[in-house]
Amino acid sequence: MPRYALQVEYHGAPFAGWQRQADQPSVQGAIEAALAKLERRDHTIAAAGRTDAGVHGLGQVAHCDMERDWDPFRLSEALNHHLKPLPVAIVNAARVDDDWHARFSALERRYLFRLLMRRAPATHDAGLVWQVKHPLDAGAMRAGAAYLIGNHDFTTFRSSICQAASPQKTLDEIRIEEVTGTSGPELRFFLRARSFLHNQVRSIVGTLERVGCGAWPPEQVRDALEARDRAACGPVCPPQGLYLSGVGYPEDPFAPRA
Amino acid sequence: MPRYALQVEYHGAPFAGWQRQADQPSVQGAIEAALAKLERRDHTIAAAGRTDAGVHGLGQVAHCDMERDWDPFRLSEALNHHLKPLPVAIVNAARVDDDWHARFSALERRYLFRLLMRRAPATHDAGLVWQVKHPLDAGAMRAGAAYLIGNHDFTTFRSSICQAASPQKTLDEIRIEEVTGTSGPELRFFLRARSFLHNQVRSIVGTLERVGCGAWPPEQVRDALEARDRAACGPVCPPQGLYLSGVGYPEDPFAPRA
Repeated sequence: MPRYALQVEYHGAPFAGWQRQADQPSVQGAIEAALAKLERRDHTIAAAGRTDAGVHGLGQVAHCDMERDWDPFRLSEALNHHLKPLPVAIVNAARVDDDWHARFSALERRYLFRLLMRRAPATHDAGLVWQVKHPLDAGAMRAGAAYLIGNHDFTTFRSSICQAASPQKTLDEIRIEEVTGTSGPELRFFLRARSFLHNQVRSIVGTLERVGCGAWPPEQVRDALEARDRAACGPVCPPQGLYLSGVGYPEDPFAPRA
Repeated sequence: MPRYALQVEYHGAPFAGWQRQADQPSVQGAIEAALAKLERRDHTIAAAGRTDAGVHGLGQVAHCDMERDWDPFRLSEALNHHLKPLPVAIVNAARVDDDWHARFSALERRYLFRLLMRRAPATHDAGLVWQVKHPLDAGAMRAGAAYLIGNHDFTTFRSSICQAASPQKTLDEIRIEEVTGTSGPELRFFLRARSFLHNQVRSIVGTLERVGCGAWPPEQVRDALEARDRAACGPVCPPQGLYLSGVGYPEDPFAPRA
Protein backbone atom coordinates (compact mmCIF):
# COMPACT_ATOMS: atom_id res chain seq x y z
CA MET A 1 0.00 0.00 0.00
CA PRO A 2 1.54 3.33 -1.00
CA ARG A 3 2.15 5.69 1.93
CA TYR A 4 1.57 9.45 1.78
CA ALA A 5 2.78 12.26 4.01
CA LEU A 6 0.19 14.98 4.58
CA GLN A 7 0.87 18.51 5.79
CA VAL A 8 -2.19 19.51 7.78
CA GLU A 9 -3.47 22.92 8.86
CA TYR A 10 -6.42 23.28 11.23
CA HIS A 11 -8.24 25.63 13.53
CA GLY A 12 -8.31 23.96 16.94
CA ALA A 13 -11.52 25.47 18.29
CA PRO A 14 -14.10 22.89 17.13
CA PHE A 15 -11.98 19.88 18.10
CA ALA A 16 -11.24 17.99 21.30
CA GLY A 17 -7.69 17.75 19.98
CA TRP A 18 -5.81 15.84 17.30
CA GLN A 19 -6.42 12.34 18.61
CA ARG A 20 -9.46 10.30 17.57
CA GLN A 21 -12.04 9.89 20.32
CA ALA A 22 -15.19 7.82 20.41
CA ASP A 23 -17.63 10.59 21.20
CA GLN A 24 -15.95 13.92 20.44
CA PRO A 25 -14.81 15.64 17.26
CA SER A 26 -11.09 15.33 16.53
CA VAL A 27 -8.82 16.35 13.68
CA GLN A 28 -7.60 12.78 13.22
CA GLY A 29 -11.19 11.53 13.09
CA ALA A 30 -12.13 14.19 10.53
CA ILE A 31 -9.28 13.22 8.20
CA GLU A 32 -9.93 9.49 8.63
CA ALA A 33 -13.59 10.07 7.76
CA ALA A 34 -12.52 11.95 4.61
CA LEU A 35 -10.16 9.08 3.69
CA ALA A 36 -13.06 6.66 4.06
CA LYS A 37 -14.92 8.63 1.38
CA LEU A 38 -12.02 7.90 -0.99
CA GLU A 39 -11.45 4.27 -0.05
CA ARG A 40 -14.32 2.67 1.86
CA ARG A 41 -12.73 0.98 4.86
CA ASP A 42 -11.35 1.90 8.28
CA HIS A 43 -8.35 4.19 8.17
CA THR A 44 -5.83 4.94 10.89
CA ILE A 45 -3.40 7.79 10.42
CA ALA A 46 -0.42 8.80 12.55
CA ALA A 47 0.78 12.36 13.23
CA ALA A 48 3.96 14.01 14.42
CA GLY A 49 2.24 15.82 17.30
CA ARG A 50 -0.94 14.97 19.18
CA THR A 51 -2.14 18.50 19.82
CA ASP A 52 -4.55 19.25 22.68
CA ALA A 53 -8.07 20.63 22.48
CA GLY A 54 -8.06 24.17 21.06
CA VAL A 55 -4.46 24.00 19.79
CA HIS A 56 -4.01 24.86 16.11
CA GLY A 57 -2.11 23.14 13.34
CA LEU A 58 -0.07 25.10 10.82
CA GLY A 59 2.53 22.55 9.79
CA GLN A 60 1.28 19.34 11.42
CA VAL A 61 2.44 16.26 9.48
CA ALA A 62 0.57 12.95 9.29
CA HIS A 63 0.77 9.87 7.09
CA CYS A 64 -1.82 7.56 5.58
CA ASP A 65 -1.68 4.29 3.64
CA MET A 66 -3.81 3.95 0.53
CA GLU A 67 -4.80 1.00 -1.65
CA ARG A 68 -4.85 2.95 -4.88
CA ASP A 69 -1.84 4.70 -6.30
CA TRP A 70 -2.99 8.30 -5.83
CA ASP A 71 -1.39 11.30 -7.42
CA PRO A 72 -0.42 13.27 -4.25
CA PHE A 73 -1.96 16.54 -5.46
CA ARG A 74 -5.24 14.83 -6.38
CA LEU A 75 -5.26 13.08 -3.00
CA SER A 76 -4.96 16.43 -1.19
CA GLU A 77 -7.69 17.98 -3.36
CA ALA A 78 -10.05 15.05 -2.79
CA LEU A 79 -9.45 15.15 0.97
CA ASN A 80 -10.04 18.91 1.09
CA HIS A 81 -13.29 18.39 -0.80
CA HIS A 82 -14.54 15.87 1.77
CA LEU A 83 -13.21 17.83 4.77
CA LYS A 84 -15.47 20.80 3.95
CA PRO A 85 -16.83 22.70 5.84
CA LEU A 86 -14.53 21.76 8.73
CA PRO A 87 -11.54 24.11 9.29
CA VAL A 88 -9.03 21.42 8.33
CA ALA A 89 -6.96 21.63 5.15
CA ILE A 90 -4.38 19.36 3.55
CA VAL A 91 -1.90 21.94 2.31
CA ASN A 92 0.62 19.45 0.91
CA ALA A 93 0.80 15.74 0.13
CA ALA A 94 3.73 13.59 -0.98
CA ARG A 95 4.51 9.94 -1.64
CA VAL A 96 6.93 8.56 0.99
CA ASP A 97 8.68 5.25 1.57
CA ASP A 98 6.68 2.47 3.22
CA ASP A 99 8.79 2.68 6.39
CA TRP A 100 8.57 6.47 6.70
CA HIS A 101 6.58 7.45 9.79
CA ALA A 102 5.14 10.90 10.52
CA ARG A 103 5.84 10.49 14.23
CA PHE A 104 8.84 8.21 14.53
CA SER A 105 10.83 9.64 11.61
CA ALA A 106 10.48 13.19 12.96
CA LEU A 107 13.68 14.81 14.27
CA GLU A 108 12.22 18.11 15.39
CA ARG A 109 8.92 19.77 16.33
CA ARG A 110 8.40 23.52 16.06
CA TYR A 111 5.73 25.46 17.92
CA LEU A 112 4.53 29.04 17.61
CA PHE A 113 2.70 30.80 20.43
CA ARG A 114 0.89 34.10 19.77
CA LEU A 115 0.28 36.42 22.70
CA LEU A 116 -1.71 39.63 22.05
CA MET A 117 -1.25 42.55 24.46
CA ARG A 118 -4.18 44.98 24.47
CA ARG A 119 -7.17 46.03 26.54
CA ALA A 120 -10.02 45.76 24.03
CA PRO A 121 -11.21 42.22 23.28
CA ALA A 122 -9.79 40.69 20.08
CA THR A 123 -12.30 40.46 17.22
CA HIS A 124 -10.55 39.12 14.09
CA ASP A 125 -8.00 37.21 16.15
CA ALA A 126 -10.43 35.83 18.76
CA GLY A 127 -9.56 32.17 19.33
CA LEU A 128 -6.22 32.58 17.54
CA VAL A 129 -4.21 34.33 20.29
CA TRP A 130 -3.86 34.40 24.05
CA GLN A 131 -4.79 37.92 25.05
CA VAL A 132 -3.41 39.71 28.10
CA LYS A 133 -4.49 43.24 28.95
CA HIS A 134 -1.16 44.51 30.26
CA PRO A 135 2.14 45.21 28.47
CA LEU A 136 4.95 42.69 28.95
CA ASP A 137 8.71 43.16 29.13
CA ALA A 138 10.07 41.01 26.30
CA GLY A 139 13.66 41.53 27.45
CA ALA A 140 12.96 40.09 30.90
CA MET A 141 11.11 37.19 29.30
CA ARG A 142 14.08 36.43 27.05
CA ALA A 143 16.35 36.44 30.10
CA GLY A 144 14.03 33.99 31.85
CA ALA A 145 13.69 31.81 28.73
CA ALA A 146 17.47 31.51 28.40
CA TYR A 147 17.57 29.30 31.53
CA LEU A 148 15.42 26.72 29.74
CA ILE A 149 17.57 26.22 26.65
CA GLY A 150 19.48 22.92 26.54
CA ASN A 151 19.05 19.52 28.11
CA HIS A 152 17.12 19.57 31.40
CA ASP A 153 14.72 17.66 33.58
CA PHE A 154 11.49 19.52 32.68
CA THR A 155 9.33 18.00 35.44
CA THR A 156 8.26 21.53 36.48
CA PHE A 157 6.97 22.28 32.98
CA ARG A 158 5.16 19.00 32.40
CA SER A 159 1.50 18.14 32.89
CA SER A 160 0.81 15.75 35.76
CA ILE A 161 -0.85 13.43 33.23
CA CYS A 162 2.13 13.48 30.82
CA GLN A 163 2.85 9.95 29.59
CA ALA A 164 6.40 10.47 28.34
CA ALA A 165 8.90 7.92 29.69
CA SER A 166 11.30 10.60 30.89
CA PRO A 167 11.05 14.32 31.81
CA GLN A 168 14.54 14.84 30.37
CA LYS A 169 14.33 16.83 27.14
CA THR A 170 16.52 19.12 25.06
CA LEU A 171 15.00 22.47 24.20
CA ASP A 172 16.93 23.82 21.20
CA GLU A 173 15.38 27.27 20.91
CA ILE A 174 12.98 29.76 22.45
CA ARG A 175 12.88 32.91 20.34
CA ILE A 176 10.59 35.77 21.36
CA GLU A 177 9.71 38.29 18.64
CA GLU A 178 7.83 41.54 19.12
CA VAL A 179 5.42 41.93 16.20
CA THR A 180 2.68 44.41 15.33
CA GLY A 181 -0.21 42.28 14.12
CA THR A 182 -3.48 43.60 12.71
CA SER A 183 -4.93 43.51 16.24
CA GLY A 184 -2.01 45.25 17.92
CA PRO A 185 1.28 44.42 19.64
CA GLU A 186 2.03 40.72 19.90
CA LEU A 187 4.74 38.59 21.35
CA ARG A 188 5.43 35.54 19.20
CA PHE A 189 7.28 32.65 20.82
CA PHE A 190 9.10 30.19 18.55
CA LEU A 191 10.09 26.94 20.29
CA ARG A 192 12.04 24.08 18.78
CA ALA A 193 12.94 20.65 20.18
CA ARG A 194 13.16 17.03 19.10
CA SER A 195 10.04 16.44 21.16
CA PHE A 196 8.01 18.15 23.86
CA LEU A 197 6.36 16.97 27.06
CA HIS A 198 2.61 17.29 27.55
CA ASN A 199 1.71 20.97 28.17
CA GLN A 200 5.40 21.94 28.06
CA VAL A 201 4.98 24.91 25.72
CA ARG A 202 1.93 26.26 27.54
CA SER A 203 3.67 25.81 30.90
CA ILE A 204 6.73 27.69 29.64
CA VAL A 205 4.78 30.56 28.05
CA GLY A 206 2.53 30.92 31.10
CA THR A 207 5.62 31.08 33.33
CA LEU A 208 7.36 33.60 31.09
CA GLU A 209 4.25 35.80 31.18
CA ARG A 210 4.77 36.05 34.96
CA VAL A 211 8.29 37.29 34.25
CA GLY A 212 7.11 39.72 31.57
CA CYS A 213 4.55 41.37 33.84
CA GLY A 214 7.14 41.76 36.60
CA ALA A 215 5.65 39.28 39.07
CA TRP A 216 8.70 37.00 38.77
CA PRO A 217 12.34 37.98 38.38
CA PRO A 218 13.91 36.11 35.43
CA GLU A 219 16.03 34.02 37.83
CA GLN A 220 12.88 32.46 39.27
CA VAL A 221 12.55 30.52 35.99
CA ARG A 222 15.90 28.88 36.76
CA ASP A 223 14.77 28.15 40.34
CA ALA A 224 11.51 26.67 39.05
CA LEU A 225 13.35 24.46 36.57
CA GLU A 226 15.81 23.27 39.21
CA ALA A 227 13.00 22.51 41.67
CA ARG A 228 11.78 19.70 39.37
CA ASP A 229 8.40 20.23 40.96
CA ARG A 230 5.16 20.84 39.04
CA ALA A 231 4.05 23.19 41.83
CA ALA A 232 6.92 25.56 41.00
CA CYS A 233 5.52 26.23 37.50
CA GLY A 234 3.68 29.44 36.63
CA PRO A 235 0.07 29.23 35.43
CA VAL A 236 -0.39 27.10 32.31
CA CYS A 237 -1.61 29.46 29.59
CA PRO A 238 -4.67 28.71 27.44
CA PRO A 239 -4.40 26.65 24.22
CA GLN A 240 -5.79 29.07 21.65
CA GLY A 241 -2.48 30.89 21.08
CA LEU A 242 -0.59 27.67 20.35
CA TYR A 243 0.27 26.37 16.86
CA LEU A 244 2.20 23.26 15.85
CA SER A 245 4.03 25.18 13.15
CA GLY A 246 6.34 22.59 11.64
CA VAL A 247 8.03 19.20 11.85
CA GLY A 248 11.56 18.39 10.75
CA TYR A 249 12.60 15.12 9.07
CA PRO A 250 15.93 13.83 7.80
CA GLU A 251 14.67 14.86 4.35
CA ASP A 252 11.72 17.19 3.74
CA PRO A 253 9.05 14.86 2.35
CA PHE A 254 7.37 17.81 0.58
CA ALA A 255 10.47 19.11 -1.20
CA PRO A 256 10.12 18.93 -4.99
CA ARG A 257 11.94 15.82 -6.25
CA ALA A 258 14.75 16.15 -8.75
CA MET B 1 -24.03 66.55 26.01
CA PRO B 2 -20.36 65.62 25.72
CA ARG B 3 -19.45 63.95 22.41
CA TYR B 4 -17.02 61.05 22.09
CA ALA B 5 -15.18 59.64 19.10
CA LEU B 6 -14.93 55.85 19.11
CA GLN B 7 -12.48 53.76 17.11
CA VAL B 8 -14.27 50.53 16.33
CA GLU B 9 -12.98 47.13 15.26
CA TYR B 10 -15.34 44.35 14.20
CA HIS B 11 -15.60 41.04 12.41
CA GLY B 12 -18.18 41.50 9.66
CA ALA B 13 -19.45 37.92 9.44
CA PRO B 14 -22.34 37.99 11.96
CA PHE B 15 -23.67 41.36 10.82
CA ALA B 16 -25.87 42.59 7.98
CA GLY B 17 -23.50 45.56 7.82
CA TRP B 18 -22.74 48.66 9.83
CA GLN B 19 -26.13 50.33 9.53
CA ARG B 20 -28.91 49.70 12.04
CA GLN B 21 -31.79 47.62 10.66
CA ALA B 22 -35.12 46.71 12.21
CA ASP B 23 -34.80 42.94 11.93
CA GLN B 24 -31.15 42.07 11.34
CA PRO B 25 -28.01 42.31 13.45
CA SER B 26 -25.83 45.34 12.70
CA VAL B 27 -22.67 46.80 14.20
CA GLN B 28 -24.37 50.16 14.77
CA GLY B 29 -27.26 48.43 16.52
CA ALA B 30 -24.89 46.43 18.73
CA ILE B 31 -23.02 49.56 19.88
CA GLU B 32 -26.26 51.51 20.42
CA ALA B 33 -27.58 48.63 22.54
CA ALA B 34 -24.38 48.71 24.61
CA LEU B 35 -24.74 52.49 25.04
CA ALA B 36 -28.31 51.97 26.28
CA LYS B 37 -26.88 49.80 29.09
CA LEU B 38 -24.81 52.79 30.21
CA GLU B 39 -27.48 55.47 29.79
CA ARG B 40 -31.01 54.12 29.49
CA ARG B 41 -32.50 55.86 26.47
CA ASP B 42 -32.39 55.62 22.68
CA HIS B 43 -28.98 56.27 21.18
CA THR B 44 -28.08 57.11 17.60
CA ILE B 45 -24.46 57.02 16.56
CA ALA B 46 -22.87 58.11 13.28
CA ALA B 47 -19.89 56.48 11.56
CA ALA B 48 -17.35 57.46 8.92
CA GLY B 49 -18.18 54.49 6.68
CA ARG B 50 -21.34 52.43 6.39
CA THR B 51 -19.72 49.09 5.64
CA ASP B 52 -21.69 46.33 3.88
CA ALA B 53 -22.62 42.90 5.19
CA GLY B 54 -19.50 40.80 5.82
CA VAL B 55 -17.07 43.73 5.57
CA HIS B 56 -14.75 44.14 8.56
CA GLY B 57 -13.81 47.16 10.62
CA LEU B 58 -10.24 47.76 11.74
CA GLY B 59 -10.19 51.54 12.10
CA GLN B 60 -13.86 52.50 11.72
CA VAL B 61 -14.65 55.73 13.57
CA ALA B 62 -18.04 56.63 15.08
CA HIS B 63 -19.26 59.22 17.55
CA CYS B 64 -21.81 59.19 20.34
CA ASP B 65 -23.32 61.82 22.63
CA MET B 66 -23.57 61.07 26.35
CA GLU B 67 -25.41 62.72 29.23
CA ARG B 68 -22.76 61.96 31.80
CA ASP B 69 -19.23 63.21 31.58
CA TRP B 70 -17.45 59.90 30.95
CA ASP B 71 -13.76 59.32 31.22
CA PRO B 72 -13.04 58.14 27.63
CA PHE B 73 -11.08 55.07 28.72
CA ARG B 74 -13.82 54.00 31.13
CA LEU B 75 -16.43 54.55 28.43
CA SER B 76 -14.55 52.19 26.07
CA GLU B 77 -14.14 49.59 28.82
CA ALA B 78 -17.82 49.75 29.76
CA LEU B 79 -18.89 49.44 26.12
CA ASN B 80 -16.57 46.48 25.56
CA HIS B 81 -18.06 44.82 28.63
CA HIS B 82 -21.59 45.15 27.25
CA LEU B 83 -20.60 44.24 23.67
CA LYS B 84 -19.44 40.77 24.76
CA PRO B 85 -19.59 38.19 23.24
CA LEU B 86 -20.09 39.96 19.91
CA PRO B 87 -16.91 40.44 17.80
CA VAL B 88 -17.04 44.23 18.17
CA ALA B 89 -14.45 46.15 20.19
CA ILE B 90 -13.97 49.82 21.02
CA VAL B 91 -10.21 50.09 20.70
CA ASN B 92 -10.02 53.82 21.42
CA ALA B 93 -12.29 56.57 22.73
CA ALA B 94 -11.72 60.33 22.97
CA ARG B 95 -13.65 63.43 23.93
CA VAL B 96 -14.29 65.63 20.85
CA ASP B 97 -15.93 69.03 20.25
CA ASP B 98 -19.70 69.13 20.04
CA ASP B 99 -19.60 69.94 16.32
CA TRP B 100 -17.10 67.20 15.46
CA HIS B 101 -18.76 64.56 13.27
CA ALA B 102 -17.37 61.09 12.55
CA ARG B 103 -18.74 61.20 9.00
CA PHE B 104 -18.79 64.84 7.99
CA SER B 105 -15.48 65.83 9.58
CA ALA B 106 -13.65 62.96 7.83
CA LEU B 107 -11.18 63.96 5.10
CA GLU B 108 -10.07 60.48 4.06
CA ARG B 109 -11.12 56.83 4.21
CA ARG B 110 -8.61 54.00 3.98
CA TYR B 111 -9.48 50.45 2.99
CA LEU B 112 -7.45 47.24 3.10
CA PHE B 113 -8.34 44.23 0.96
CA ARG B 114 -6.74 40.84 1.67
CA LEU B 115 -6.57 38.31 -1.16
CA LEU B 116 -5.13 34.86 -0.37
CA MET B 117 -3.70 32.79 -3.25
CA ARG B 118 -3.64 29.06 -2.56
CA ARG B 119 -5.40 25.82 -3.43
CA ALA B 120 -6.22 24.40 0.01
CA PRO B 121 -9.17 26.04 1.80
CA ALA B 122 -8.19 28.66 4.39
CA THR B 123 -8.68 27.52 8.00
CA HIS B 124 -7.41 30.24 10.38
CA ASP B 125 -8.14 33.00 7.85
CA ALA B 126 -11.53 31.70 6.71
CA GLY B 127 -13.90 34.67 6.51
CA LEU B 128 -11.00 37.13 6.74
CA VAL B 129 -9.68 36.92 3.16
CA TRP B 130 -10.90 36.45 -0.39
CA GLN B 131 -9.29 33.23 -1.55
CA VAL B 132 -8.42 32.48 -5.17
CA LYS B 133 -6.83 29.19 -6.15
CA HIS B 134 -4.52 30.52 -8.86
CA PRO B 135 -1.43 32.74 -8.68
CA LEU B 136 -1.84 36.37 -9.76
CA ASP B 137 0.58 38.73 -11.49
CA ALA B 138 0.91 41.66 -9.09
CA GLY B 139 2.89 43.70 -11.63
CA ALA B 140 0.10 43.54 -14.20
CA MET B 141 -2.43 44.43 -11.49
CA ARG B 142 -0.38 47.48 -10.49
CA ALA B 143 -0.29 48.58 -14.15
CA GLY B 144 -4.08 48.22 -14.36
CA ALA B 145 -4.61 49.99 -11.03
CA ALA B 146 -2.55 52.98 -12.15
CA TYR B 147 -5.31 53.98 -14.60
CA LEU B 148 -7.70 54.46 -11.67
CA ILE B 149 -5.61 56.91 -9.67
CA GLY B 150 -6.85 60.51 -9.72
CA ASN B 151 -10.18 62.20 -10.34
CA HIS B 152 -12.52 60.17 -12.55
CA ASP B 153 -16.14 59.34 -13.24
CA PHE B 154 -16.28 55.93 -11.50
CA THR B 155 -19.70 54.89 -12.85
CA THR B 156 -18.18 51.58 -14.02
CA PHE B 157 -16.98 50.78 -10.48
CA ARG B 158 -20.16 51.76 -8.64
CA SER B 159 -23.05 49.61 -7.48
CA SER B 160 -26.29 50.20 -9.38
CA ILE B 161 -27.94 51.02 -6.02
CA CYS B 162 -25.25 53.55 -5.02
CA GLN B 163 -26.89 56.66 -3.56
CA ALA B 164 -23.99 59.10 -3.93
CA ALA B 165 -24.93 62.34 -5.65
CA SER B 166 -22.11 62.07 -8.18
CA PRO B 167 -19.94 59.23 -9.57
CA GLN B 168 -17.01 61.67 -9.75
CA LYS B 169 -14.42 60.75 -7.12
CA THR B 170 -10.71 61.19 -6.53
CA LEU B 171 -8.80 58.00 -5.75
CA ASP B 172 -5.56 59.02 -4.07
CA GLU B 173 -3.83 55.66 -3.82
CA ILE B 174 -4.01 51.98 -4.70
CA ARG B 175 -0.96 50.18 -3.35
CA ILE B 176 -0.62 46.44 -3.88
CA GLU B 177 1.77 44.60 -1.55
CA GLU B 178 2.85 40.98 -1.83
CA VAL B 179 2.92 39.52 1.68
CA THR B 180 3.49 36.04 3.09
CA GLY B 181 0.78 35.59 5.71
CA THR B 182 0.41 32.59 8.03
CA SER B 183 -1.87 30.99 5.43
CA GLY B 184 0.38 31.62 2.45
CA PRO B 185 0.99 34.23 -0.25
CA GLU B 186 -1.36 37.21 -0.10
CA LEU B 187 -1.93 40.34 -2.08
CA ARG B 188 -2.88 43.25 0.14
CA PHE B 189 -4.55 46.23 -1.51
CA PHE B 190 -4.38 49.59 0.25
CA LEU B 191 -6.85 52.17 -1.10
CA ARG B 192 -7.20 55.75 0.00
CA ALA B 193 -9.71 58.46 -0.99
CA ARG B 194 -11.78 61.24 0.55
CA SER B 195 -14.79 59.00 0.03
CA PHE B 196 -15.78 55.92 -1.92
CA LEU B 197 -18.83 54.94 -3.94
CA HIS B 198 -20.92 51.93 -2.94
CA ASN B 199 -19.04 48.71 -3.83
CA GLN B 200 -16.20 50.74 -5.35
CA VAL B 201 -13.36 48.86 -3.63
CA ARG B 202 -14.85 45.43 -4.31
CA SER B 203 -15.50 46.40 -7.95
CA ILE B 204 -11.91 47.57 -8.37
CA VAL B 205 -10.33 44.53 -6.68
CA GLY B 206 -12.56 42.13 -8.63
CA THR B 207 -11.55 43.83 -11.87
CA LEU B 208 -7.85 43.81 -10.99
CA GLU B 209 -8.07 40.08 -10.24
CA ARG B 210 -9.09 39.61 -13.90
CA VAL B 211 -5.92 41.45 -14.88
CA GLY B 212 -3.78 39.45 -12.44
CA CYS B 213 -4.93 36.09 -13.79
CA GLY B 214 -4.27 37.21 -17.37
CA ALA B 215 -7.88 37.33 -18.56
CA TRP B 216 -7.67 41.13 -19.05
CA PRO B 217 -4.73 43.18 -20.32
CA PRO B 218 -4.01 46.08 -17.94
CA GLU B 219 -5.28 48.59 -20.55
CA GLN B 220 -8.75 47.09 -20.31
CA VAL B 221 -9.05 48.73 -16.88
CA ARG B 222 -8.65 52.12 -18.60
CA ASP B 223 -11.21 51.14 -21.24
CA ALA B 224 -13.63 50.01 -18.53
CA LEU B 225 -13.20 53.27 -16.63
CA GLU B 226 -13.69 55.35 -19.76
CA ALA B 227 -16.81 53.39 -20.72
CA ARG B 228 -18.63 54.81 -17.65
CA ASP B 229 -20.80 51.73 -17.86
CA ARG B 230 -21.43 49.34 -14.97
CA ALA B 231 -21.49 46.44 -17.46
CA ALA B 232 -17.81 47.10 -18.29
CA CYS B 233 -16.75 46.26 -14.71
CA GLY B 234 -15.13 42.95 -13.79
CA PRO B 235 -16.89 40.69 -11.25
CA VAL B 236 -17.45 42.35 -7.87
CA CYS B 237 -15.37 40.39 -5.36
CA PRO B 238 -16.81 39.06 -2.08
CA PRO B 239 -16.88 41.21 1.09
CA GLN B 240 -14.91 39.05 3.52
CA GLY B 241 -11.48 40.32 2.39
CA LEU B 242 -12.43 43.97 2.89
CA TYR B 243 -11.51 46.08 5.93
CA LEU B 244 -12.25 49.73 6.65
CA SER B 245 -8.76 50.27 8.01
CA GLY B 246 -8.71 53.93 8.93
CA VAL B 247 -10.28 57.36 8.71
CA GLY B 248 -8.42 60.65 8.44
CA TYR B 249 -9.52 63.88 10.16
CA PRO B 250 -8.03 67.38 10.23
CA GLU B 251 -6.66 66.40 13.64
CA ASP B 252 -6.42 62.83 14.94
CA PRO B 253 -9.09 62.71 17.67
CA PHE B 254 -7.21 59.85 19.37
CA ALA B 255 -3.81 61.53 19.52
CA PRO B 256 -2.67 62.08 23.12
CA ARG B 257 -3.39 65.69 24.11
CA ALA B 258 -0.59 67.95 25.19
